[in-house]
Amino acid sequence: MNDRFAKTPSPHYYAVIFSNQLSDDDTGYAEMGARMFELAMEHPGCLGAETTRDKSGFGITVSYWDDEASIADWKANAKHLAAQAMGIERWYAHYELRVARIERAYSGPKGRSAG
Amino acid sequence: MNDRFAKTPSPHYYAVIFSNQLSDDDTGYAEMGARMFELAMEHPGCLGAETTRDKSGFGITVSYWDDEASIADWKANAKHLAAQAMGIERWYAHYELRVARIERAYSGPKGRSAG
Repeated sequence: MNDRFAKTPSPHYYAVIFSNQLSDDDTGYAEMGARMFELAMEHPGCLGAETTRDKSGFGITVSYWDDEASIADWKANAKHLAAQAMGIERWYAHYELRVARIERAYSGPKGRSAG
Repeated sequence: MNDRFAKTPSPHYYAVIFSNQLSDDDTGYAEMGARMFELAMEHPGCLGAETTRDKSGFGITVSYWDDEASIADWKANAKHLAAQAMGIERWYAHYELRVARIERAYSGPKGRSAG
């Protein structure tokens, strides 16, 4: 299994599903995105995250959390607030954010390992 | 807002978060993926889906559903079962599938429209 996958515990836990379309002005986005990803990983209650984006700039990031309190605490993090402001003002043409409770989970394919 | 985003109702509803890494042999995957996406959209209880994949073949598809029964019914669909078998045998190096209940949701940026 490669390191693009989050190693999450048995349910229940929580997820933030963040779907977003970058605008034409994505100057500085890649660096900030990478920094926020690392910062989130160190945040109490964060279980991991998975993220990908196609060449048209449509991305999905799913981060996994112990509970809703951890998510709220991360949302209010000062450095993350500054990044959110840049995202709202400049980087995101549109986004949808959904908070969900993971009910069940499984992985595959059985008996095979990823490159 | 562009059509890459699912138009989902107010919570609660359900999501299937499917994170996957394509293997080196992805012959036929794009066509099958597109066909399954369309078929899922027509399936009773499906509310929409969002999908993206980067050039390394790491993809995330999140589909949204009325309830767990709709998800189970789609999983057992005959055409979908054939596609799942191909995915397990050939296309996916690894995948993680998580079923979640959407608790709350919001979109942004406020006052802007996507291209």
